[in-house]
Amino acid sequence: MAKHLMDFALEADFETYVLIKNADKRVAKNGKSFLSITFQDQSGQISGMYWDASEQDAQQFIPGRVVYLKGKREMYKETPQVKIYEMRLARDNEPHDPLMFVKRAPMTSQEMKNYINQTIFEITNATENRIVRALLNRHAKAFFSYPAAKSNHHDFAGGLAFHTISILRLAHSVVNQYPGIDAPLLYAGAILHDLGKTVELSGPVGTEYTLAGNLLGHLSIIDAEIVEAADKLGIDGQNEDLLLLRHMVLAHHGLLEYGSPERPKLLEAEILHDLDELDASIMMIQGALANVNPGDYSDRVFGLDNRRFYKPHPGNLPRQEGQDPSRLF
Amino acid sequence: MAKHLMDFALEADFETYVLIKNADKRVAKNGKSFLSITFQDQSGQISGMYWDASEQDAQQFIPGRVVYLKGKREMYKETPQVKIYEMRLARDNEPHDPLMFVKRAPMTSQEMKNYINQTIFEITNATENRIVRALLNRHAKAFFSYPAAKSNHHDFAGGLAFHTISILRLAHSVVNQYPGIDAPLLYAGAILHDLGKTVELSGPVGTEYTLAGNLLGHLSIIDAEIVEAADKLGIDGQNEDLLLLRHMVLAHHGLLEYGSPERPKLLEAEILHDLDELDASIMMIQGALANVNPGDYSDRVFGLDNRRFYKPHPGNLPRQEGQDPSRLF
Amino acid sequence: MAKHLMDFALEADFETYVLIKNADKRVAKNGKSFLSITFQDQSGQISGMYWDASEQDAQQFIPGRVVYLKGKREMYKETPQVKIYEMRLARDNEPHDPLMFVKRAPMTSQEMKNYINQTIFEITNATENRIVRALLNRHAKAFFSYPAAKSNHHDFAGGLAFHTISILRLAHSVVNQYPGIDAPLLYAGAILHDLGKTVELSGPVGTEYTLAGNLLGHLSIIDAEIVEAADKLGIDGQNEDLLLLRHMVLAHHGLLEYGSPERPKLLEAEILHDLDELDASIMMIQGALANVNPGDYSDRVFGLDNRRFYKPHPGNLPRQEGQDPSRLF
Amino acid sequence: MAKHLMDFALEADFETYVLIKNADKRVAKNGKSFLSITFQDQSGQISGMYWDASEQDAQQFIPGRVVYLKGKREMYKETPQVKIYEMRLARDNEPHDPLMFVKRAPMTSQEMKNYINQTIFEITNATENRIVRALLNRHAKAFFSYPAAKSNHHDFAGGLAFHTISILRLAHSVVNQYPGIDAPLLYAGAILHDLGKTVELSGPVGTEYTLAGNLLGHLSIIDAEIVEAADKLGIDGQNEDLLLLRHMVLAHHGLLEYGSPERPKLLEAEILHDLDELDASIMMIQGALANVNPGDYSDRVFGLDNRRFYKPHPGNLPRQEGQDPSRLF
Amino acid sequence: MAKHLMDFALEADFETYVLIKNADKRVAKNGKSFLSITFQDQSGQISGMYWDASEQDAQQFIPGRVVYLKGKREMYKETPQVKIYEMRLARDNEPHDPLMFVKRAPMTSQEMKNYINQTIFEITNATENRIVRALLNRHAKAFFSYPAAKSNHHDFAGGLAFHTISILRLAHSVVNQYPGIDAPLLYAGAILHDLGKTVELSGPVGTEYTLAGNLLGHLSIIDAEIVEAADKLGIDGQNEDLLLLRHMVLAHHGLLEYGSPERPKLLEAEILHDLDELDASIMMIQGALANVNPGDYSDRVFGLDNRRFYKPHPGNLPRQEGQDPSRLF
Amino acid sequence: MAKHLMDFALEADFETYVLIKNADKRVAKNGKSFLSITFQDQSGQISGMYWDASEQDAQQFIPGRVVYLKGKREMYKETPQVKIYEMRLARDNEPHDPLMFVKRAPMTSQEMKNYINQTIFEITNATENRIVRALLNRHAKAFFSYPAAKSNHHDFAGGLAFHTISILRLAHSVVNQYPGIDAPLLYAGAILHDLGKTVELSGPVGTEYTLAGNLLGHLSIIDAEIVEAADKLGIDGQNEDLLLLRHMVLAHHGLLEYGSPERPKLLEAEILHDLDELDASIMMIQGALANVNPGDYSDRVFGLDNRRFYKPHPGNLPRQEGQDPSRLF
Repeated sequence: MAKHLMDFALEADFETYVLIKNADKRVAKNGKSFLSITFQDQSGQISGMYWDASEQDAQQFIPGRVVYLKGKREMYKETPQVKIYEMRLARDNEPHDPLMFVKRAPMTSQEMKNYINQTIFEITNATENRIVRALLNRHAKAFFSYPAAKSNHHDFAGGLAFHTISILRLAHSVVNQYPGIDAPLLYAGAILHDLGKTVELSGPVGTEYTLAGNLLGHLSIIDAEIVEAADKLGIDGQNEDLLLLRHMVLAHHGLLEYGSPERPKLLEAEILHDLDELDASIMMIQGALANVNPGDYSDRVFGLDNRRFYKPHPGNLPRQEGQDPSRLF
Repeated sequence: MAKHLMDFALEADFETYVLIKNADKRVAKNGKSFLSITFQDQSGQISGMYWDASEQDAQQFIPGRVVYLKGKREMYKETPQVKIYEMRLARDNEPHDPLMFVKRAPMTSQEMKNYINQTIFEITNATENRIVRALLNRHAKAFFSYPAAKSNHHDFAGGLAFHTISILRLAHSVVNQYPGIDAPLLYAGAILHDLGKTVELSGPVGTEYTLAGNLLGHLSIIDAEIVEAADKLGIDGQNEDLLLLRHMVLAHHGLLEYGSPERPKLLEAEILHDLDELDASIMMIQGALANVNPGDYSDRVFGLDNRRFYKPHPGNLPRQEGQDPSRLF
Repeated sequence: MAKHLMDFALEADFETYVLIKNADKRVAKNGKSFLSITFQDQSGQISGMYWDASEQDAQQFIPGRVVYLKGKREMYKETPQVKIYEMRLARDNEPHDPLMFVKRAPMTSQEMKNYINQTIFEITNATENRIVRALLNRHAKAFFSYPAAKSNHHDFAGGLAFHTISILRLAHSVVNQYPGIDAPLLYAGAILHDLGKTVELSGPVGTEYTLAGNLLGHLSIIDAEIVEAADKLGIDGQNEDLLLLRHMVLAHHGLLEYGSPERPKLLEAEILHDLDELDASIMMIQGALANVNPGDYSDRVFGLDNRRFYKPHPGNLPRQEGQDPSRLF
Repeated sequence: MAKHLMDFALEADFETYVLIKNADKRVAKNGKSFLSITFQDQSGQISGMYWDASEQDAQQFIPGRVVYLKGKREMYKETPQVKIYEMRLARDNEPHDPLMFVKRAPMTSQEMKNYINQTIFEITNATENRIVRALLNRHAKAFFSYPAAKSNHHDFAGGLAFHTISILRLAHSVVNQYPGIDAPLLYAGAILHDLGKTVELSGPVGTEYTLAGNLLGHLSIIDAEIVEAADKLGIDGQNEDLLLLRHMVLAHHGLLEYGSPERPKLLEAEILHDLDELDASIMMIQGALANVNPGDYSDRVFGLDNRRFYKPHPGNLPRQEGQDPSRLF
Repeated sequence: MAKHLMDFALEADFETYVLIKNADKRVAKNGKSFLSITFQDQSGQISGMYWDASEQDAQQFIPGRVVYLKGKREMYKETPQVKIYEMRLARDNEPHDPLMFVKRAPMTSQEMKNYINQTIFEITNATENRIVRALLNRHAKAFFSYPAAKSNHHDFAGGLAFHTISILRLAHSVVNQYPGIDAPLLYAGAILHDLGKTVELSGPVGTEYTLAGNLLGHLSIIDAEIVEAADKLGIDGQNEDLLLLRHMVLAHHGLLEYGSPERPKLLEAEILHDLDELDASIMMIQGALANVNPGDYSDRVFGLDNRRFYKPHPGNLPRQEGQDPSRLF
Repeated sequence: MAKHLMDFALEADFETYVLIKNADKRVAKNGKSFLSITFQDQSGQISGMYWDASEQDAQQFIPGRVVYLKGKREMYKETPQVKIYEMRLARDNEPHDPLMFVKRAPMTSQEMKNYINQTIFEITNATENRIVRALLNRHAKAFFSYPAAKSNHHDFAGGLAFHTISILRLAHSVVNQYPGIDAPLLYAGAILHDLGKTVELSGPVGTEYTLAGNLLGHLSIIDAEIVEAADKLGIDGQNEDLLLLRHMVLAHHGLLEYGSPERPKLLEAEILHDLDELDASIMMIQGALANVNPGDYSDRVFGLDNRRFYKPHPGNLPRQEGQDPSRLF
């Protein structure tokens, strides 16, 4: 049972543990209920029908539960699906932690904590440092386990922290390259910019938008929490460092059309926005090209204006025909 | 000295008390400093040059100060201006309250307070009522004295409260006409929607944007204060009434392009946005047509996509020629 | 047989009278014709297949006809449908008036006529009054029976007059609140603004766009009729009141992109446009939320930029915990 | 006195007859009135100040009057202007017809009438033919003397008819090249498309927008006149030929944003729109390049999205170096 | 076997030669492969399933191959399809040239060559003439056989040359009507403007975008070839005639949003763009209306902003009722 | 004479060497010619009038010439200007190299050459390496001396190479951070992306757009040169590496509206576009804030949608009040 969902061959029988990602109850033509279920493990996703579902089945086979699954891989309308032979909830002595079945960030949680820890020491402005500590402390568990989005980019467990760290790494490069940047402000803004997603989204498994997420958005959510935290820390509401930090968060979508109530009016806010876009673009394109053959095009990428991307053939070998080894200038 | 600035005839000498609205220090061709000053009273504005200004003059003749002014009304490049004979700060026993010299809302402060008071009683939802009371209490003085904007519409002292009350009056009409509207939510949202302008703007005289106004905008300013107030009142941050109220404020500009981080997703939020636009449009058009002759067009109105508006001639007399007095249906 | 279409239980047999809203003739795999029919009564709509349809069936079972229907309510692909046992045209001594089976405005035709009558008396400008009378007279029957749109808002019998009256009621509130509005012009414009829909649309049942509607639009349709009516009433074509009234109609969509050949250039034209949008928005949102459970979101509303709207839970009880009964100011 | 305004040398005294295009009354620093006047003849325009103007001067020296002018050509702030020595109204035995002093179309009025006459014979559809005749008859004088615009393209006397004829000539080419075009409809639409400008504009001299022009636009103006004319000719309002003709006029701006209430939905309407744009573009670009030296750029052209256009150097001589005289295929 | 695909009656058996336009290999529920094939001849297209396809079948029945087909015309889901009885590749002594089975331009290849030849003689500028010859020479075969687009307008064999010639014919009309146009530049630009499509598209049969087409677009493709050709002809890279010609090509889409890196800055470039749009619009509308009954609307036309077009009823007879035979002016 | 233009005090006499940046010949009211000149050195710019200019003066005092200037610094209309006492061309034994008087990149030419050299070695793809070498070789002198723009960002001598190197440094950081990027392609694209500006712009002094720049733009200019260079190097025109490199250049503006004929369809093309924007934004904002006091706002930045940027006060001292030195996670 070491194999994963994507490893089973067509028409092959298999048994494994999988996570239920979606489960819709429907009524068949014969009047009986059935469940249309999407299963998931770290290798990918596949769907199947659970026929003649009782009321109890419908109540226990819900998104976020791990099940033991016995079935066969089939094709239906050119799409792979599972014919379900047997299915039951995983027991306590079997794999049953949902987080084991979702894709994860390429850094461990501890590596990410170390990186964040180190960066906090570089936030040498007292106001910014204290607010960052207070809010990270409050949302630590979610920050290191949530995805950065429901879909699109960084839609895997730990994606929120990993996306934040990717931006921080780019930010360090920029600070090293250009003089005159307020590094503590840039780092503090980067850490807080998407932290509101811990309230906007429901969690790492079966991720949905919460009511607060739908009505307010993650920018306003974390902006208000910054003010509340500052208030409790005795920081004055008109303290300039506080206003700058709030602006970093509110302006990071760059354009009003993208949900920022203000466009960037600080050098550091513009940089944060640009780095956020750069990291998201790279992740989206690499994700879209992951399963594409050289010489083919990806599917359309929604978050990048529905563009398709091309995957080139591996380049020719270097320095063989005609490349000049001499110094040009 | 009962006359106002706009009452003096061309080439006539006069003396009066006026408010300094703007004062720029410049250097003349002869190398001496002078002040280019704009004076203001409730009748309007006029400019003049104060020659050979000493350093002390530059420090005392600043925006927001009331002065005794002796001069003559002249024309220069088709624009009226004041030739200044004499100028000094107004004394304590003379008119010296700047608020006496700016345009004011057509309701008295007490009338406006009464209307707001009455409406608060109609906000029968406890969460909404308590938050509205707390924030109105905090910003009461500014709320009843600030303008609703630096320029454009309701740019007069008390304009913020007057604009709020105009929306509340329209909101009452809508609630009476359409069944099923959550009146307390609509009224609470209307009272809070622009309250952040008490922090975004500098005050009723010489109004400018504050740093918080420039970096955050009045939507995010008051949104964060709602959360802070709820926290102090012991209201849970995920309380649905609280989230609805925050959404009313954040969505009231209607479109992301206009600075709302979320578009209206509640019936009441859509209504608030529409009434806000209706009231602002009427005030802007009436302001633009105020000094226009029948048969002419106004100047372009910036806040209404630079449209010009036409002022019709008074209509013909009714019911004289051919109007039918009978019932149609 | 008192029950309506939406009242029948799943798998229950029933018989009733219904209106045919749509009927498409198709060919089955066995080569025989069948009719795919949508039935409608005031409770809602449901579809079904009429197999082995003869040529005569196809000619008599057409949109706008009332039929006696015997069948069973079933589920197919998660959508309710009717299995048809028997179907024939309704007889003269049975319910057979199509208008009895479509949704209707919440005011009776006579109530609406009274309101319009009363408003006409308030149009004290002779030119405007005479033109309004002439055109209402010409289109009276359609005005009080047509919907205001093929779909979207006010898409029910009498919707056109009801929408017009809703705007008139809001207009009276605005006239009462703001001084200086030309009330007769506003009321006359409101009555005429959508009257062209009596030519643009085909009628209250099976509503389609006419050729004139498709090629000209209801703005140009009624604009030309105003000119024609004025000509017959002996009103000069350059009469200012006539030009103002035409502008009210032509500008009421507000933006060129929405089909107005001119943007509003009169205070009253801007108000008419704003009230038209306000009324349409409220009707569309309330319609979208009608069958939504508290805590859920509506479907996307096409006429409001595909937004979803949230239906809040009923608010908490008022004045119990912590609400302050005292006067604030 | 045979010379024109543009022919006089700098610092040279001259006397001539010219048209007053604009005249603004202003007050000088010394308190006396003066007139700032723009003079015009077929060679171009120039401005000058008429000092110490009496009330009578202000009343007689108005736009549209021809004057005898004695003066000197000067430079002021890098712009040529006239120093006025003497000025009086032209007498009846002197040149005094304003139309003699404005730019004119490159066809005579009679040539244009002949072309239109001939085209009317090609409009073989009775409905279209009768309406075209009726409206051309009503507006004949203005049609052959008005410009096609206040500024931009064809802004000269007779420009409206000349622009119409240019489109008709292009339309004949298109009809000859492509089979299946309804030529009578295309020609009738072309003749009527801008005829509303005879009401939208004030005339060939000192052209301004009329109130009808500002509030309705020339599309709606002529659309309503078509309906009125059809009514008088006994043509039914729902006659398809009538609806097609109205659509040709209403849709000819092509896009809603350009003021057409409907986009073209007929092949002939799309062609009319494209030819209208083609002719206007050529006229605007040629006008902009008229006084530009080879190798330079024109001023920005407002009607063409503020583009500048380049005037190439005359090309090199043909067929000398290396051009191949043989047949390629 | 003289009949074409569209001539066969429902349920009729037939045999014929057809071209394979598309062929997708799929797996049926029983696990066996089948081919979903679209057949094409000059009369139109129809699809069918080739069941139990062997590996060899999948390799030989590919787009661009002509086959002998024996089958029956059926209806499936309201769409005609072919039930395949027998299918094999066409033999050398049977019709097997794919170009015989695709739609063709309404001029023969030789007629088109004659027209282009004649026009080249009118390009009297040596630089332009030599470049046009060089590039036409290089791409002659593709130029006269390729379509002008994968779909949309002129999507038939020879469409590229035919579209070019249609523009040239319109260009001659414009040159004859307006003085001052650089005819050789206009004609040279017209010939080259879409020539890059010979590299952007894969060919006249089974047309797809090439990698160069996807990554560069036909404007940049031919622009670079112009430079390369000029270089080989010894024409200097900064020669003004060369720059003008490149601009004609690069600017012919008119707007940056449509893929032109520069907007037209030459009179001739603007004209070329307008004529390109005019010809494409006429072809798209006539294509969309080809199979529409009078009184109906076309499908939505993607290339014309998804508009539908109306096909009028034949007009009434001319000159019968009331048409006036007299001269109007 | 060691001082620079910006160092002289008001009303102080001075003598120095400066570059003429602009010189316009005008005619004074007295009929005599004068020159309105803008002077420039590395410290900034200032203007002055050279009265009574002879024809010879006008011919020698032109943009790009260095002059000896004796004058006095004055204020006129609140703008500093020079009163010119004496002016003559600089002699050969005096400072006379125009490049000494313009702002320069913060790296020396040799440092920049070394960096480029080193990067070329990292372009290990033979096709890309050879093309980059060929084109850099051809434009080396201009590449290291031209600005990157006429105004906006990097508008100083050497700015083009410096901007290129800034992008390369960022690109190295990105390559190090993200696996799977084609580094040689990214570096080659970065080096070539703006190289067309060596033809688009006229040079480092008195920079203007050339005719090629105006008609083609720098994207198409270098794209065509890549093809021409590849042709001479014997690289096939459809070589995939060549197509990828051309796409990098053509797509680097990111959006069609910004002049790219294709949007990025390669991961590396998207990264290049993002880094180009990031570097340009930082340079524009830092430039705009250079002379702004803390607490003030910059002027509007044209290249960043006319935003103003805020210059914060220096932050408070770190770690003094309440900053927590402990590890958070």
